[in-house]
Amino acid sequence: MDILELRPVAEMLFSKIRELTSDGVGVTRESYGNGESVAADFLREFAVEQGFEVSSDRAANLLFRLPQTCAEGASVWCGSHLDSVPQGGNYDGLAGIVAGLLCLLAQKRSGQLSAVPLQVIGIRGEESAWFGKAYVGSSALFGQLDSDDLALKQRNTGDSLATCLQRVGADLEAIQLQKPLFDPSRVRAYLELHIEQGPVMVARKLPLAVVSGIRGNIRHNVVQCIGEAGHSGAVPRWLRRDALFAVADLIMRLDEHWSVLLERGTDLVVTTGIMSTNPAEHAVTRIPSQVKFSFEVRSKSIDTLEAFYQLMRAECTAISRERQVRFEFDRRLLSNPAVMDRQLCDLLAKTCTERGTPFEVIPSGAGHDASLFENAGIPSGMLFIRNQNGSHNPDEAMEIADFMLGVQVLEQTINALS
Amino acid sequence: MDILELRPVAEMLFSKIRELTSDGVGVTRESYGNGESVAADFLREFAVEQGFEVSSDRAANLLFRLPQTCAEGASVWCGSHLDSVPQGGNYDGLAGIVAGLLCLLAQKRSGQLSAVPLQVIGIRGEESAWFGKAYVGSSALFGQLDSDDLALKQRNTGDSLATCLQRVGADLEAIQLQKPLFDPSRVRAYLELHIEQGPVMVARKLPLAVVSGIRGNIRHNVVQCIGEAGHSGAVPRWLRRDALFAVADLIMRLDEHWSVLLERGTDLVVTTGIMSTNPAEHAVTRIPSQVKFSFEVRSKSIDTLEAFYQLMRAECTAISRERQVRFEFDRRLLSNPAVMDRQLCDLLAKTCTERGTPFEVIPSGAGHDASLFENAGIPSGMLFIRNQNGSHNPDEAMEIADFMLGVQVLEQTINALS
Repeated sequence: MDILELRPVAEMLFSKIRELTSDGVGVTRESYGNGESVAADFLREFAVEQGFEVSSDRAANLLFRLPQTCAEGASVWCGSHLDSVPQGGNYDGLAGIVAGLLCLLAQKRSGQLSAVPLQVIGIRGEESAWFGKAYVGSSALFGQLDSDDLALKQRNTGDSLATCLQRVGADLEAIQLQKPLFDPSRVRAYLELHIEQGPVMVARKLPLAVVSGIRGNIRHNVVQCIGEAGHSGAVPRWLRRDALFAVADLIMRLDEHWSVLLERGTDLVVTTGIMSTNPAEHAVTRIPSQVKFSFEVRSKSIDTLEAFYQLMRAECTAISRERQVRFEFDRRLLSNPAVMDRQLCDLLAKTCTERGTPFEVIPSGAGHDASLFENAGIPSGMLFIRNQNGSHNPDEAMEIADFMLGVQVLEQTINALS
Repeated sequence: MDILELRPVAEMLFSKIRELTSDGVGVTRESYGNGESVAADFLREFAVEQGFEVSSDRAANLLFRLPQTCAEGASVWCGSHLDSVPQGGNYDGLAGIVAGLLCLLAQKRSGQLSAVPLQVIGIRGEESAWFGKAYVGSSALFGQLDSDDLALKQRNTGDSLATCLQRVGADLEAIQLQKPLFDPSRVRAYLELHIEQGPVMVARKLPLAVVSGIRGNIRHNVVQCIGEAGHSGAVPRWLRRDALFAVADLIMRLDEHWSVLLERGTDLVVTTGIMSTNPAEHAVTRIPSQVKFSFEVRSKSIDTLEAFYQLMRAECTAISRERQVRFEFDRRLLSNPAVMDRQLCDLLAKTCTERGTPFEVIPSGAGHDASLFENAGIPSGMLFIRNQNGSHNPDEAMEIADFMLGVQVLEQTINALS
């Protein structure tokens, strides 16, 4: 059968899950919370109706396969994440799971199974928005959640990650052992289709892209700069310990370093997404004694990440001395960059070329579960689908025609694996 | 009688009013609200007990005089403000009213009236914390409140200034005429005793200071910088419209101009007391599309204020172009600087010298009602009392011995006027 015939199934899945997880503005699928579980339950029900076997791993991620295939043998995995950011878009994550399910459905209906059996995975907890840490579901799977991670609090409820994991049926004791919950050597490949989250493909008029690598990042969710409050009219400049001027100084120094590094061809983005004086005490006429802000640096290169991070810390030290303030850092979070498997990249690219589908090879600025699979030694590949208006907002706008092109490439790639 | 004998009266007044307006942390006397009225009522009661005549002007400011004196004749005014910032200190404002009342009480008890009759004023609404505008009470008195001012909202209740004025018995129709509510030509002098709000006098070990002038200011309570949100990993630097980097850039440019101007001897302080990304949409991994911040510049020179303000606007224009953002400004608020009356300064200084009280002549960085009196043509003078830990916080710590030194100088100065 031609997998394009399954387009109405894709449309139905997207539309139903959008409806079920709508928050009035966009969709909200909380990691290990209600929206994510609603999406998981709906997909489980759909899969059972289709005659798939559905199970959960010990981290409560969802697994789908055909009953004819053996759970223990080698398999090719295909999937993405179930959760979304608050008021996010419908396709970020979900597209990759639906793509995998269409491939599984095509095999089921045609009776033509891939040489390496296909297993589709719906991963929980990918978005950092809920617990301040990304890739929770795949980290659990690879035995990479430590006790600090498990103590992280949900942004709204304050419940710990451990509590939320247990609530959706995860095996906390198994996770606490910090060992992989499956045998990675049995996974022939991990393939993830995902919408692009930046503006590049729209600008270049490309429906598909093969992802060459995934940027890693170093983050602090909360850095505090502490100075001294004072009357804005009565304290001269030389006696000030202005926390806000200090943070502005830091940001401008980082911006300058960033500019210079870009000119040298370094891959780098730097962001402070959150910043605020203290609402409990700030005033127009008061020198701010406290500023809280987030810090994030992303790069394809772990060396660049570490070097820029040290540069940031050195600038904080210099500013502390010059402006008589101090900086306090919460836990440093590191997500390693990944270079996608060369053979899988070539295979995805070859498939696009053979089909006559325009594509390019581009790096991913955003992070994806695929980086953990690749860094754990599982050959991993990613396919980006063109998407207007970025992501992490309700306006993301993938076209189903582009998506189906990606599904075709995915199916053909899976079938080519041996 | 020696006015020093009245020290227990001062202690009682400070202690009772602190108790009545305590908020558990500091004192809270809302402009045209509960705390301010509680303080006013207590002082009215005390004054009536002492046999003073107490009245309110049409802006609901409190007036005290001896019954032997005529309300219509020439008088010397002495006072300060009744209100405080939220969780503020007990002496900021109140000290000047208590000082005036002690002078009045000394005249009453000794029967020795000053040549020019003394009238004490307790002014309402001096602090900008409540309506985003300073000197509301004295502005009303001088016919300087316009309809925009009257529409300002109270920070907590959202009630308009007009409503709050009426609630405490002000004559709104009279205020709306924008004409002085009294005859300034009948006021021989305005004298205000106030705690210092900066660290200078403590550092220099001076109990008293004569104020040479009062810095004016230009403010925006809310400036918005608007850029474009985006995924922190997926949007390269050249495509970013980062509102936070833009505001950090602005602050650093202003800081540089400030440094240069200080080197040239310009009197200037620059403060952004409030700043925040938008809590409804900010995230560690999201390029901020919106930053709100306050702007304030203070100087003794109106030319410096205007020049620096234009510089700020020019930098905003440049940054808008360079960083693809835009700035939106709320209403610009101007408080004129004032140079205190030379003859009164000399008289205050001479009195200090004669008494052997160490003092210095210093400018006031903070604003005071005295600037409006002076700028309206009433010869005005100010006396600062040493005060630890700054002001606008519960830790301000004036010593009563310093205060009584100031009261002595004030009494002698009032008696010297003809």
